[in-house]
Amino acid sequence: MAEILVIGIAGGTGSGKTTLMKNIMSKLEGKVTVLSHDNYYKRHDELTFEERSALNYDEPNAIETSLMVEHLKQLREGKAIDCPVYDFTRHNRSDETVHLEPSPVIIVEGILIFENKELRELMDIRLFVDTDADERLCRRIKRDVTKRGRTLESVLNQYLSTVKPMHEKYVEPSKKYANLVIPEGGKNIVALDMILGRIKHHLDGTPAVYFEEEE
Amino acid sequence: MAEILVIGIAGGTGSGKTTLMKNIMSKLEGKVTVLSHDNYYKRHDELTFEERSALNYDEPNAIETSLMVEHLKQLREGKAIDCPVYDFTRHNRSDETVHLEPSPVIIVEGILIFENKELRELMDIRLFVDTDADERLCRRIKRDVTKRGRTLESVLNQYLSTVKPMHEKYVEPSKKYANLVIPEGGKNIVALDMILGRIKHHLDGTPAVYFEEEE
Repeated sequence: MAEILVIGIAGGTGSGKTTLMKNIMSKLEGKVTVLSHDNYYKRHDELTFEERSALNYDEPNAIETSLMVEHLKQLREGKAIDCPVYDFTRHNRSDETVHLEPSPVIIVEGILIFENKELRELMDIRLFVDTDADERLCRRIKRDVTKRGRTLESVLNQYLSTVKPMHEKYVEPSKKYANLVIPEGGKNIVALDMILGRIKHHLDGTPAVYFEEEE
Repeated sequence: MAEILVIGIAGGTGSGKTTLMKNIMSKLEGKVTVLSHDNYYKRHDELTFEERSALNYDEPNAIETSLMVEHLKQLREGKAIDCPVYDFTRHNRSDETVHLEPSPVIIVEGILIFENKELRELMDIRLFVDTDADERLCRRIKRDVTKRGRTLESVLNQYLSTVKPMHEKYVEPSKKYANLVIPEGGKNIVALDMILGRIKHHLDGTPAVYFEEEE
């Protein structure tokens, strides 16, 4: 793990993972490769759109994590990958892929990335963005209704039937594996500054400030 | 806040605040002044030992926070202070004080330091050490029975009658004010390394890595 720093960013839906990631990336242009767990949702060509819409997308089994583990291993070894692309409008994996080159910093993000032992152990730094459930729900409603064209009723039904129970079953307990928990992810400048400082040290060629140096 | 960096370390009883603090200080010899909220427990000469033993030591009103705020302001201005000393065996403030010189880094620690708005706003970085309640209880029993000579029964009674309810009323909600929450405080090398990196930047004369520079 000398040359490539892998940072995991987890947290519930609407917690501010994306904002934190964008803030990190805005200061590190061209030096970051992002791997999103969402892109590894399983392909379900055998189901109709209605059947796919009814699937539980918030449980670990909905995602092809083994493929993501393979891809992350390859990126860490300095190899490029072809990342699958998920089509939220069709609720299915698309036929496109995105060619991703490795970078000195790899960000892995998703609600369930700490739940899988093999995946989380590939990360040097595990960050969990922790935001109150009601604030997260507000953001999810805005995102799904405005950007993804869903009805308010379907968003709330999905939230209560799968998002919330799966959050409590899988996402919240996986917080235990975080090295740092970041309250109010997006706006937390003090945390962002410390994370950027750590990345800068890595890019400068000093992987850890005190401990790895002296031990 | 240019020259002196104030770091607050909060967290429930037995969370690992002291271990985190010692680990930070071990790498920064002579550059850190520690201000412990415990030393500001109010003087109660008017009460008997038995009456003092029965006081609730886990609520904000037990502590002379206004004096600590004054002292922290003076330290931040580069002035020395005479810090009160609390005598746990007598359950009262002792007649001694400790002369504290300001240092480039000031660590403020205690279970309730984020609860007081004036106090927490004097901190540049607020860290909350978050450890499961059962693990914290184990450590508290060991500390109080072994080091402070209390009976197991008195420790458990105090835990259930004041420590736990006050934790839930004041300490846990004050976690909201943390910039970073650190799970498993003492052993968390990744977090420790990021904190030390941030302090090192301060000592090198670069107060914040990216944000304060550019804004």
